[in-house]
Amino acid sequence: MDCANAFYSTTYEIDEKYGTDYFERFKKFIIKVQDEDLIVGGALTDPKGDRSVPIGGEGQDADLYLRVVERRHDGVVVNGAKAHLTGITNAHEVVVLPTQALRPGQEDYAIAFSVPLDAPGITIIIGRQSCDTRKMEEGADIDLGNAKYGGVEALTIFDHVFIPNEHIYLNGETEFAGMLVERFAGYHRNSYGGCKSGVGDVAIGAASLIAQYNGTEKASHVKDKLIEMTQINEQLYALGIASSAEGWQTKAGNYMVDLLIANVCKLRLCENLALGTAAVGYRTESMHGAGSPQAQKIMIARQGNLEGKKELARRIGGVKE
Amino acid sequence: MDCANAFYSTTYEIDEKYGTDYFERFKKFIIKVQDEDLIVGGALTDPKGDRSVPIGGEGQDADLYLRVVERRHDGVVVNGAKAHLTGITNAHEVVVLPTQALRPGQEDYAIAFSVPLDAPGITIIIGRQSCDTRKMEEGADIDLGNAKYGGVEALTIFDHVFIPNEHIYLNGETEFAGMLVERFAGYHRNSYGGCKSGVGDVAIGAASLIAQYNGTEKASHVKDKLIEMTQINEQLYALGIASSAEGWQTKAGNYMVDLLIANVCKLRLCENLALGTAAVGYRTESMHGAGSPQAQKIMIARQGNLEGKKELARRIGGVKE
Amino acid sequence: MDCANAFYSTTYEIDEKYGTDYFERFKKFIIKVQDEDLIVGGALTDPKGDRSVPIGGEGQDADLYLRVVERRHDGVVVNGAKAHLTGITNAHEVVVLPTQALRPGQEDYAIAFSVPLDAPGITIIIGRQSCDTRKMEEGADIDLGNAKYGGVEALTIFDHVFIPNEHIYLNGETEFAGMLVERFAGYHRNSYGGCKSGVGDVAIGAASLIAQYNGTEKASHVKDKLIEMTQINEQLYALGIASSAEGWQTKAGNYMVDLLIANVCKLRLCENLALGTAAVGYRTESMHGAGSPQAQKIMIARQGNLEGKKELARRIGGVKE
Amino acid sequence: MDCANAFYSTTYEIDEKYGTDYFERFKKFIIKVQDEDLIVGGALTDPKGDRSVPIGGEGQDADLYLRVVERRHDGVVVNGAKAHLTGITNAHEVVVLPTQALRPGQEDYAIAFSVPLDAPGITIIIGRQSCDTRKMEEGADIDLGNAKYGGVEALTIFDHVFIPNEHIYLNGETEFAGMLVERFAGYHRNSYGGCKSGVGDVAIGAASLIAQYNGTEKASHVKDKLIEMTQINEQLYALGIASSAEGWQTKAGNYMVDLLIANVCKLRLCENLALGTAAVGYRTESMHGAGSPQAQKIMIARQGNLEGKKELARRIGGVKE
Repeated sequence: MDCANAFYSTTYEIDEKYGTDYFERFKKFIIKVQDEDLIVGGALTDPKGDRSVPIGGEGQDADLYLRVVERRHDGVVVNGAKAHLTGITNAHEVVVLPTQALRPGQEDYAIAFSVPLDAPGITIIIGRQSCDTRKMEEGADIDLGNAKYGGVEALTIFDHVFIPNEHIYLNGETEFAGMLVERFAGYHRNSYGGCKSGVGDVAIGAASLIAQYNGTEKASHVKDKLIEMTQINEQLYALGIASSAEGWQTKAGNYMVDLLIANVCKLRLCENLALGTAAVGYRTESMHGAGSPQAQKIMIARQGNLEGKKELARRIGGVKE
Repeated sequence: MDCANAFYSTTYEIDEKYGTDYFERFKKFIIKVQDEDLIVGGALTDPKGDRSVPIGGEGQDADLYLRVVERRHDGVVVNGAKAHLTGITNAHEVVVLPTQALRPGQEDYAIAFSVPLDAPGITIIIGRQSCDTRKMEEGADIDLGNAKYGGVEALTIFDHVFIPNEHIYLNGETEFAGMLVERFAGYHRNSYGGCKSGVGDVAIGAASLIAQYNGTEKASHVKDKLIEMTQINEQLYALGIASSAEGWQTKAGNYMVDLLIANVCKLRLCENLALGTAAVGYRTESMHGAGSPQAQKIMIARQGNLEGKKELARRIGGVKE
Repeated sequence: MDCANAFYSTTYEIDEKYGTDYFERFKKFIIKVQDEDLIVGGALTDPKGDRSVPIGGEGQDADLYLRVVERRHDGVVVNGAKAHLTGITNAHEVVVLPTQALRPGQEDYAIAFSVPLDAPGITIIIGRQSCDTRKMEEGADIDLGNAKYGGVEALTIFDHVFIPNEHIYLNGETEFAGMLVERFAGYHRNSYGGCKSGVGDVAIGAASLIAQYNGTEKASHVKDKLIEMTQINEQLYALGIASSAEGWQTKAGNYMVDLLIANVCKLRLCENLALGTAAVGYRTESMHGAGSPQAQKIMIARQGNLEGKKELARRIGGVKE
Repeated sequence: MDCANAFYSTTYEIDEKYGTDYFERFKKFIIKVQDEDLIVGGALTDPKGDRSVPIGGEGQDADLYLRVVERRHDGVVVNGAKAHLTGITNAHEVVVLPTQALRPGQEDYAIAFSVPLDAPGITIIIGRQSCDTRKMEEGADIDLGNAKYGGVEALTIFDHVFIPNEHIYLNGETEFAGMLVERFAGYHRNSYGGCKSGVGDVAIGAASLIAQYNGTEKASHVKDKLIEMTQINEQLYALGIASSAEGWQTKAGNYMVDLLIANVCKLRLCENLALGTAAVGYRTESMHGAGSPQAQKIMIARQGNLEGKKELARRIGGVKE
């Protein structure tokens, strides 16, 4: 789990510096989660509002960044919100961390904790999804897309929510906020290598199925596009594998993904190589060495297992042969 | 070595089917290569000429595909040529394999062997390189590009070259030509993950240096392009790692790379994901989940080690600070 | 009007060859349309089904291609359907033409005509649009997107529809089907230069507004993306202008767009220039001659009139300042 | 001529404001150029050095920006250099303008003039071109690329060059430097619509010829790439046409190109449209309305006149059939 690994390794290093006991607190939380088989969401993103105004800057609505508003002997009270939480409505607990790296003077924003989603003061506002009411229309059995599965994203508001000390894992140590965010994001981006390439398999399968039904599966421009989709998808998968394979052990004992490759992993678009000093030889050999791009395309077409991907698409789309 | 691994695993499977002793022959060759520290080139690509005429087709110059022209009790005599051999002028031996998968009836083309490059009947024709005579101009010390290192590609012609039996590793078993080619190409494409990303490191370093000398290293569009180059380069490296990490053991005992990922590895351009049925949710989450593309760019900028890459470029370009 | 221009010029040339009076019939229809201020849709695309089976091929459902099923002295009866007709529910009349070029033997498919949409035998099946029922939800006033404007696409079925002779503009002259389709499509693609760049203005305006509300309008990566959107949009607009400017007069007297540029006009993606023999000099000069790409970006940012585009987006989105 | 048009329209507006007689001086120069059939180069780009230091900034070598170093009653003396001047070695005169927009206090840099290239104090340093000595190798008749035509770029140094008053067209009016640069660049970018698409025609012809000689002209991936090259090239041509068609008359009477489209004209790469609120409908209709992208490809293949382009490539390459 991306969130767990980031807290596990970072709390260990905070304790090492400050003599706090965040690592033990977090381990207890994880054991409870495993024992009781709980679902946990991770919450990172604050609403922020006008990004040209810094945290706590003049004219800013203070609730746009989650922060401590009251400190008690047995815990803290927090105000704020976390946005874009996928699947939070299915979770038992949420683990909250700062939205970005922080500086001295921003101690109230340097707060990380876990809390049950039914704690007093928490409100979840569901975000509308495209065509979200269509599945509920009476008699609807076509034009439903993914009829059986689905999910929603939500904005989760914290209005004076009390967090007891034993569930706090960062409290004012501003210089560790960046490490927590960076590691959480690194694990999360690494996980996309598996998550998004799975979705990609379904998309490729669906596109293949449509081509088959239209009798265009052999058309060169259709084959070409399916190969391109497979290329991009396998690239994503390979980046996930590689950022794990190149990982390193943290002080806490768990493994950290290679952050550079993990960040490349979540990549929307590639651009062509630049026109550098060595471009002619480099590009020519890069293109033709080990066979032309067309040779790879043929191999990708052979190895891409389109039939398996079609089966995934059929199952999700409820198509019977 | 890409070539060695392909022959090692394929000869084992030919022997298994036909009771030949290609595997032992090839092992002996490899031991000699290691004992005598020889450099070996791999030769795959036939000149082919008009691709719309099949091998041995009417009107075709027979020498456009390398083949057996005489069979003796102690070996075979071959005619033909192999094109685009990088570094062949530095090699002691060349290992030759068919240029493509073959069918029954094409037994004369199903020939694989090793031969010293000074064997009678072999002629090497060097290909011109861009600005290849400039380094030889008297007094030239600017505009030389990569002044110390370099290489040439060559066309190698086989004019009635005798190959003794002990250096033959495929001889008429047409159905194994495809496996040999596919595995050779797979290993070769896998190796590009390391080879081309090394060249890429130099290109990125050179671009960074030029930006630094021009005082534009902090300009957002320059930073953006350096990050893009780093993204593509790390992607290539990661594909090499991943195609190795996902490899499998062949019958001969060595390991075969994952062919799908290895083929994706040698990828010039990525295209955007298709506009599928699930595109809105998939693309939105793929874009924004785990942080925006800009967040990754920032991390890639941090993790990309531009200073190390500049040092590589400085060394090759002979730049003194 | 794309459709009118294609029929106007093509019917003239059919009459010239066959002595028919399609041109006069069509002119009468256009005069009526103008006098009565009618809305007319153009209908091109047949459902087709399995594209690997040719028109009228074995095993094909004959109704997948619109065709004449009965010939009378005063007209013809047609069966079939036309797909993806935008705005057809708002039209008084529809003008139907063949879906593709035809060969001798396919005379029944070589039929073009106009017909009122309330003629007996015509059924319109509306296609679902994304979130199409949301505007009808009680009390809904957020998450509506384009709340005031909209449209639907429809499948229009012709079940034994009678077409009187005076509304027939092609009837069996198979060799003119291709000219009709090509000209219709050429005008239609040309019109995208204005139509889609108008939609693009709104998209650019909407993106600028969001950036402004989030305080990120000055961020270099945001500016960069807005410039890119403007580049693509102006390119589209310019292609529309250029395909008109390079047009030529047909025999009928109206003007035909330049078909090559009109086809380039409807272009989703551009790819980089190929790595040709002259690539180094060509690409270098093409890149740096007349100023670097960054210099153009600055000019595009200045000339792009973002404020005007924001105003369009505000008006459609119902945003009050 | 890009340069002439920019000076013609800008000098008129300077005179209007300051009562200078630059317009008359420039007109006289143009008449002489036409009468004597002279070749004139335009010189814009200063070497600049470290771009993070502003013009005249501390630590900057003053000669990196061309400027007035002495003022006499009959003219001025200038120092500096202009870079990347294509074809300057073939020109009789050079017209020099500032490298960028200027501010009050930078009057010495606000200087524009014409001067013969053999004037005392001017030195031209030729830039090396790729393989530039190959054509001079004895007996060389292959591997020459473009054997008959060619050109060089040069750095032109001005070391205390005297410019008489009658050849000065801007002298200290800093606020007009930007207008001069912007108009010059606008005309120049507009001209690329014709210039670069001509080079593109040759590149497309050369690629087609190679495909024909290799028997791959019918291969779908080869056809696809030729179509893509044609698309990009026609796009460029169309942008040139459109920026002229949308031009406007200046106060001086000549016509100014549409600056926005002219800037889009010099465009290396297009990116996909952003994922905006209206993306699904917009992209779907933009893709499929007026026919699928494949339909355009077919038309572009038909209309692209590959035979004519091959002929251009044959002529330049000296290929005899």
